[in-house]
Amino acid sequence: MAAPGVVAAPAFAQWMGQVQSGMEEVLNRFLPSASVVPARLHEAMRYTAMDGGKRVRPLLVYAAGELFDTPRALLERAAAAVEMIHVYSLVHDDMPCMDDDALRRGKPTVHIRYDEATALLVGDALQAQAFDTLAAPLESEAGSADAGLPARQLRMVKLLAEAAGSVGMCGGQAIDLASVGMTLSLAELEQMHRLKTGALLRAAVLLGALGGKALTAAESAALDDYARAIGLAFQVVDDILDATADSATLGKTAGKDAADNKPTYVSILGLAESQALAGRLQADAHEALAPFGGKARRLRELADLIVQRKT
Amino acid sequence: MAAPGVVAAPAFAQWMGQVQSGMEEVLNRFLPSASVVPARLHEAMRYTAMDGGKRVRPLLVYAAGELFDTPRALLERAAAAVEMIHVYSLVHDDMPCMDDDALRRGKPTVHIRYDEATALLVGDALQAQAFDTLAAPLESEAGSADAGLPARQLRMVKLLAEAAGSVGMCGGQAIDLASVGMTLSLAELEQMHRLKTGALLRAAVLLGALGGKALTAAESAALDDYARAIGLAFQVVDDILDATADSATLGKTAGKDAADNKPTYVSILGLAESQALAGRLQADAHEALAPFGGKARRLRELADLIVQRKT
Repeated sequence: MAAPGVVAAPAFAQWMGQVQSGMEEVLNRFLPSASVVPARLHEAMRYTAMDGGKRVRPLLVYAAGELFDTPRALLERAAAAVEMIHVYSLVHDDMPCMDDDALRRGKPTVHIRYDEATALLVGDALQAQAFDTLAAPLESEAGSADAGLPARQLRMVKLLAEAAGSVGMCGGQAIDLASVGMTLSLAELEQMHRLKTGALLRAAVLLGALGGKALTAAESAALDDYARAIGLAFQVVDDILDATADSATLGKTAGKDAADNKPTYVSILGLAESQALAGRLQADAHEALAPFGGKARRLRELADLIVQRKT
Repeated sequence: MAAPGVVAAPAFAQWMGQVQSGMEEVLNRFLPSASVVPARLHEAMRYTAMDGGKRVRPLLVYAAGELFDTPRALLERAAAAVEMIHVYSLVHDDMPCMDDDALRRGKPTVHIRYDEATALLVGDALQAQAFDTLAAPLESEAGSADAGLPARQLRMVKLLAEAAGSVGMCGGQAIDLASVGMTLSLAELEQMHRLKTGALLRAAVLLGALGGKALTAAESAALDDYARAIGLAFQVVDDILDATADSATLGKTAGKDAADNKPTYVSILGLAESQALAGRLQADAHEALAPFGGKARRLRELADLIVQRKT
């Protein structure tokens, strides 16, 4: 039992559930209503953005926010923005000219449920909505004067734009496309994933942190080490799951990478060594958080979740 | 001859040429080098962004900037950002699932010259690059302390995101798609174009203005009236040119709207009445600028250019 006056922190699963269900409310607030013209576009944006998913990036935003006392109103916007970027990338990635996938999060993908042109526009509009959400004026919401807030928001916009663009996520996708059927070295595979998924996971951690008090160089470097380790671990585990789980469990088409002749950690390292690598990256993530002590509890638990997840 | 000590403003054609050639240098500076990985993606971004075009939106940014003494470094970024959004929208609009066009500005479109997946990523990455460019820290470039700069930049990011998104340009594209083969009223056609092209032209005018000293409500309303008039005029003239010019002159496929069974001003109003409407909108634009006097010279000249252009 907790000591008097001390509120026990909720267990991880409870905290995670709160963030995940909270994200439905937050996204509902920051996405245009499906009754606003053009209604079909807005309905399709909501169809793809608002049905769960693990919300790993929002979880990272909130967890990092706990370290630096980032205002809640700003965390909500950062979490929604990074998730919108992630969702748009999935919509475009599933299109016939990219991965041509019919199933995502257990539902028909946007170009299947609607049509290709709508999928293209849903992705484009979600990216714009992400920056719209992050750049909104916040003074009144925060309830108190905070003269440094616009400058912090502007840094967050810049960070997210870099992570989403051609030297981040889009660049990783381009390398991924170019690598189909090729033999990549482990270093090349790592560079691809550092951009394709790592950049946005890193952005999620840093967005949560940047919204609060100024980071020291050491804090910034420690967060970067953490983000790099979980970003890579995320992809290694994705490859392991793609090779070992079934489509019903994953909510997307399993075994697709092998079928598409894409290089993966499992195809290069084998299953056992991939699992060992994931474990080492989990340990690296924990080590990077050591300077933050108990306040980094959620970031630690998220590193464990990323490595131990089954979907 | 100009009076001693007074530097005569350059003629419009000379000013326009300076802005247009300046934009090549500015875009060269704000786009990643083609030698940066992934090189093919960066090469394709430059292929589509850096070969001229009329640069109507940058011209509007610079012209509006003259009214409010917006710092040059910020005008450059705003002009590049709005042009990147415009260019990305053309790349996606030309894709097979949208307008399926093979020619743009006299060159093969991106999905023809490269491939569809690259065209998708080029558009996605250019959108991110636009926000990256607009949100970059500027203090040192401006050369002097300007405490209000981040807040102004943040407002500009918000404005551009709104204009680009689902209640702006992307929304207009969605309405356009849904209207193929339908009979639109003049009001419905106008609403579509107010979003599809009007929103970004309006954003260009306001971005140039917002970067400088604070606007009064009257100034803001006058600029909005101007932007609405030229936005509509731009589309009316586009429809006139599509019906009357040839592909070689336009640098894109002429007669495409009629062939695609898309409603246009010419198909609804006829050619003569469309030309009269363009003339009335030109007069409206001039009238809206009256309060600004001589400082609005470039905006006036741009209204004339938009209506009198032949391509």
